[in-house]
Amino acid sequence: MTDGLSYAAAGVDLDAAERTKEGLKKLVSSTRDRFTLSELGAFGGLYQVPGDVDQPVLVSSADGVGTKLKLAFATGIHDTVGQCLVNHCVNDILVQGARPLFFLDYLATGEMDEAVVQDVVRGVAIACRENECALLGGETAQMPDFYSADEYDLAGFVVGVVSRESVIDGSRIVDGDVLVGLASSGLHTNGYTLARKIVFEVMGLSVGDTFPGSDLTVGQELLSVHRSYLHVLDEPLSAGTVHGLAHVTGGGIPGNLPRVLPEGLGAVVDRGAWPVPAVFETLRESGGVDRVEMDRVFNMGIGMIAVVAPGDADGIHAAARARGVDSWTIGVIEPGSGVRYR
Amino acid sequence: MTDGLSYAAAGVDLDAAERTKEGLKKLVSSTRDRFTLSELGAFGGLYQVPGDVDQPVLVSSADGVGTKLKLAFATGIHDTVGQCLVNHCVNDILVQGARPLFFLDYLATGEMDEAVVQDVVRGVAIACRENECALLGGETAQMPDFYSADEYDLAGFVVGVVSRESVIDGSRIVDGDVLVGLASSGLHTNGYTLARKIVFEVMGLSVGDTFPGSDLTVGQELLSVHRSYLHVLDEPLSAGTVHGLAHVTGGGIPGNLPRVLPEGLGAVVDRGAWPVPAVFETLRESGGVDRVEMDRVFNMGIGMIAVVAPGDADGIHAAARARGVDSWTIGVIEPGSGVRYR
Repeated sequence: MTDGLSYAAAGVDLDAAERTKEGLKKLVSSTRDRFTLSELGAFGGLYQVPGDVDQPVLVSSADGVGTKLKLAFATGIHDTVGQCLVNHCVNDILVQGARPLFFLDYLATGEMDEAVVQDVVRGVAIACRENECALLGGETAQMPDFYSADEYDLAGFVVGVVSRESVIDGSRIVDGDVLVGLASSGLHTNGYTLARKIVFEVMGLSVGDTFPGSDLTVGQELLSVHRSYLHVLDEPLSAGTVHGLAHVTGGGIPGNLPRVLPEGLGAVVDRGAWPVPAVFETLRESGGVDRVEMDRVFNMGIGMIAVVAPGDADGIHAAARARGVDSWTIGVIEPGSGVRYR
Repeated sequence: MTDGLSYAAAGVDLDAAERTKEGLKKLVSSTRDRFTLSELGAFGGLYQVPGDVDQPVLVSSADGVGTKLKLAFATGIHDTVGQCLVNHCVNDILVQGARPLFFLDYLATGEMDEAVVQDVVRGVAIACRENECALLGGETAQMPDFYSADEYDLAGFVVGVVSRESVIDGSRIVDGDVLVGLASSGLHTNGYTLARKIVFEVMGLSVGDTFPGSDLTVGQELLSVHRSYLHVLDEPLSAGTVHGLAHVTGGGIPGNLPRVLPEGLGAVVDRGAWPVPAVFETLRESGGVDRVEMDRVFNMGIGMIAVVAPGDADGIHAAARARGVDSWTIGVIEPGSGVRYR
């Protein structure tokens, strides 16, 4: 029997998994709220539907961080990608008017490095607290010979709630509405496969080098945390002035804004209305990337677009300013379809 | 510009992603129910909280399929792992008394092979229909140089609902209750790293070989679909006879049954009460795996345990028989802690 196989010998350490789970308890409980009914370790997480929402509609989204994870591997900084993940998911349900209730994560690793798992989940918990949502559960999977020992994938899933009459689906958007663009905080979580190719292969940089035209290192610039727009948009959403919202993720503005435009309406985006951050110009020039391709792959400095009546744009700008987020009126709605730049 | 870089050249094909999404629409809409308010393509999926549940509590769980995926890669059979994933998640919330409302998946691939993505999501949709839950959304991520071209990872998230007074947390379990074991349908989704090592390295088998002592091939035996116990347990849950439920996943019976036992109570499991399926005996003998280790890694033929009063065991057996699932009374609850075999 001493020569027999065991799960640990095959690469899966159930005891390490148990220790890791113990270590996560404090992080998870830091995100609890009065509706959280379960403790970590239950098969499923329990969350009471808040009673103060009329005709509650659950809004849910799943997402990952993409190959931004490669930056975490290269730098050893593992506590920001979880924040990116949560903020990305929160933004994806915010565009339909929903506030987050709870979040679950899926973390798959080659080897259960307790410190790395702790760092990743710490990032998730930080963002859950910032977005006032409970980290209700998750799965940490050991998959040796699937992931390298020092690599992992990370996915997340958020559930929020909105009253049925307050669902934002773009149907209130009309001809003459304006587009208010809210500043992104870097690349967010999109375009990393192209960005990494340009930065590391074409430009030959390393994560510790200074990013050209920036005070930050390459690692810092590319790991900047995906911004959540929950607190900026909280008041405008409650006030009911928002006609439509687009989270600028994969596909850029042309790929995302049309998702909320009613039939017969298009958007004109004024390229000169906001300063494209240097990081995007550097990527474009160094990679020789076509401008149309840049617009489709990256957020180009705009992470969220709110469509409002012209008279309500100032309210969005004020809400953004109050949260330290830059904003610009970047275009208008007019008859047509899709997005046209000018 | 013709020498410039593009997203496609870097390995991410946004057009293929768009085509794939179109192809999934039919699968996704096949799972819609009257509470599903959104179409595929919205940022978040919308689901109305059913109004007929008193004090609704949401129960949510995240999970993956683990390295069972390696069997899908080796056989080219991609439409069963999604079923395993959904059924696993459904079982994880069922143990707290919840019926599933909706499901989201996360599929990360090296290369967007439309046929494979279709197969995987078809499996997810099949199981969503069987479990009467809506496939509300998901993320399909292209991550070249992260996953091999022909590999992928798959995670899922389920949300269900239960009335607060009907939450099952094991607190009703008392001394003298009996354990009713429901038959598993193979390895389910646990222990694959060890099982693959034994089957492919120690035994030297290939996926097309006949599994020793079985009519099935190695691929068929190891890809058998993780069973959902929703329909077996539906009536007993409605009747209120179930004191506790344990889904036998990673950690086996000793790792999962104690999760629902109240302080001061333990379980005695009678090894002879059910026939351990041949696949587990073959793995144990060929791998020289210790019996204690087997119990901790594999389900050993029992996928779900219901804890009920002695007089209610027959009701569970009848419900199982009605769904073609074998069941056995496999032990009792007595003062103590944890799980003891006899």
